[in-house]
Amino acid sequence: MPADPSRVITNLRELAALTSDSNGAQRVAFTATWQRARDWFADKLAGLPVQQHRDAAGNVWVTLPGASPKALVLGSHLDSVPNGGWLDGALGVITALEVLTSIANDFNGRPPFTVRLVDWADEEGARFGRSLFGSSAFAGTHTIAADRVRTDRDGITLAAALRESGIDIDRIGDAAAEQKDMAAYLELHIEQGPVLERLGLPLATVLGTKGVERHSITFHGQEAHSGSTPMSDRRDALAAAARLALEIYSIAGKHQDAVCTIGSVKTFPGIVTAVVGRCECTLDQRDLSSGVLAQMYREAQEASQRFAAQHGCTVDWSRIWSIEPIPFHEDLIALSREAIEETAPGCPSLPSGPLHDAAEVARAGIPTVMMFSQSLRGISHNKIEDTSEEHLRLAVTAFDRLARKTLNWLGTR
Amino acid sequence: MPADPSRVITNLRELAALTSDSNGAQRVAFTATWQRARDWFADKLAGLPVQQHRDAAGNVWVTLPGASPKALVLGSHLDSVPNGGWLDGALGVITALEVLTSIANDFNGRPPFTVRLVDWADEEGARFGRSLFGSSAFAGTHTIAADRVRTDRDGITLAAALRESGIDIDRIGDAAAEQKDMAAYLELHIEQGPVLERLGLPLATVLGTKGVERHSITFHGQEAHSGSTPMSDRRDALAAAARLALEIYSIAGKHQDAVCTIGSVKTFPGIVTAVVGRCECTLDQRDLSSGVLAQMYREAQEASQRFAAQHGCTVDWSRIWSIEPIPFHEDLIALSREAIEETAPGCPSLPSGPLHDAAEVARAGIPTVMMFSQSLRGISHNKIEDTSEEHLRLAVTAFDRLARKTLNWLGTR
Repeated sequence: MPADPSRVITNLRELAALTSDSNGAQRVAFTATWQRARDWFADKLAGLPVQQHRDAAGNVWVTLPGASPKALVLGSHLDSVPNGGWLDGALGVITALEVLTSIANDFNGRPPFTVRLVDWADEEGARFGRSLFGSSAFAGTHTIAADRVRTDRDGITLAAALRESGIDIDRIGDAAAEQKDMAAYLELHIEQGPVLERLGLPLATVLGTKGVERHSITFHGQEAHSGSTPMSDRRDALAAAARLALEIYSIAGKHQDAVCTIGSVKTFPGIVTAVVGRCECTLDQRDLSSGVLAQMYREAQEASQRFAAQHGCTVDWSRIWSIEPIPFHEDLIALSREAIEETAPGCPSLPSGPLHDAAEVARAGIPTVMMFSQSLRGISHNKIEDTSEEHLRLAVTAFDRLARKTLNWLGTR
Repeated sequence: MPADPSRVITNLRELAALTSDSNGAQRVAFTATWQRARDWFADKLAGLPVQQHRDAAGNVWVTLPGASPKALVLGSHLDSVPNGGWLDGALGVITALEVLTSIANDFNGRPPFTVRLVDWADEEGARFGRSLFGSSAFAGTHTIAADRVRTDRDGITLAAALRESGIDIDRIGDAAAEQKDMAAYLELHIEQGPVLERLGLPLATVLGTKGVERHSITFHGQEAHSGSTPMSDRRDALAAAARLALEIYSIAGKHQDAVCTIGSVKTFPGIVTAVVGRCECTLDQRDLSSGVLAQMYREAQEASQRFAAQHGCTVDWSRIWSIEPIPFHEDLIALSREAIEETAPGCPSLPSGPLHDAAEVARAGIPTVMMFSQSLRGISHNKIEDTSEEHLRLAVTAFDRLARKTLNWLGTR
């Protein structure tokens, strides 16, 4: 029997009812509500021929042993942002459970390969500003020194919150032991963007996660009185930043799927009666091609210098964070396309702009692919996040097909 | 004997030493340091044939009675912004004292007309965000209902701070009694802008104060994920605001002396990973012509609508404050030009972008003019605010000449 989409939807609604309030989902990692979600999930395993354990970084693993220890892993995350949606992360975990259950039934509890499910810890990084916590520990890309001192709004350190949850921050790297025998990783997630809705299509194969260049850019001009400073004498840091805020549309527009965003602008002194003397902004650039990403970064730097000069300003750049593009596995991309084509013909393949746990798994060298379902209005991280039931059903069916095709593929390796 | 510029400079330096710290002048109105400045000033009156009193709004008046009760008034303000300069306001008050002293001496203590000096209370509005406090009370343009509830950073109300200083907020309008017999008002001030320095000239006659349209403008777009939202799908509130931040240069550029400033931009949610869903900015527009001001306001509104539409946004405007242009008195402008021409030939006449107490006096229907001295680097409201001693000397001499010409002019009225 293939996976049952109805049961996935029922479970998703049950989880939402248990862990949401009137503002949306509240499954913030390392909080009581998150633990309630995980306890609820553990109860769902009753009667399955599986073992469950938590690794050194707090990721939960469910293992259905197969004839071979070589493992197909399905996963996502149960944690949410504050006031989040019902699907982000949860869709992937609950669909994985349904597919694992279906495979267990079809193979009388013993499939040819081991099948595992993972619920990654703190994908969102909502409380401590450190996303992909559990999967980066697993992948060996964690940064304990930087993470140890992170604090939440109440001044509680990440290290203390981990200790509260029984996790020793100095040992999170031990989660890498879970890489053993891991032969493929599949993740279903909502798109969190508007592309599929605009195309009128339910599903997509994800080609990889875009690389990110994330910078803080400060234009330095001269604070001056708004009433007494002629326009021609101004060194207006805001004007220089405004040119960049528009130029990024040209910079990204040269490339399919590339994006550039100025998400934050701060003006100093920031008062109605003064020309802006200093303007700080953030730039986030993403593309699946490292060449395109490097070109966009260079072009933004050059443009910022040009605009600064044009307004008598100077400009400083400071890297906030960057990550290389992470392409997914070619064979698994092909299998995902097949599975989707059999379920909902004509769907596209897209890069993912948002990062996902799957990116960390791929960085660990494990063959990985993701599948997207449509997001209504492209909205996520909000209580109005939604996907039509019809599309959720197609997603479960296609993901189930992908899992089975991947089991077959493992047999050819 | 004409006014002695050296004594003005000595007094200014003495006041600065008494009321500044390493960050600049700290004579914020309704604070102990301001009171220290006023006490120091009162001591300087010793030996002069004058009476001193404080009016119902806290303005200090010094009266040298003349043969006629008709009065020439000279004034400015001793209060400063926090971390302010040594000249803003203080130059006008201390020069007024020197000119009054010189006239008293020249007329053996009894000039043909009464000569008065006023030190306006809280010109800057630095503590409560309400500038021209004392002069607006004098002019009858005060707004007690709105002012009563203003608070400083510590939550102290303006009403309470006034009470502390012995001022009853409900009676500040009684300061209008000082208008009696007031026949002319003269104010010397630093330019606080770069025009005179750029022209290489020390002084200017001020034609009036520019009218101001001050608005809060909010662009409403759609918050969206920076990684998953294609450039073409964005409703980027920052992009719309950025276009306006550049367009104001075209709007103001059509007119001599007109200025438009976007001094504050706030982005929401204002995070590196989200397209800006809402962008709030302030616009300050100024010109001496009410027709030009109205045209600039209309053009900015139209442009904001156009830019909002271009980026799939909407836009709201909300007036923060406005004031009509206030032209000074033609006869007194002519006298100021004469006085300056005799002192430093070739100097210009300019509108003032910043507002001044003189604008409130002019609104009360009293013949008024101001004189500017050059500001180095155009910088004010900062400890590096400065004017060369040479220019300060010329300013004192020209202002003294203007006062004497105005006394003669009063005789012709």
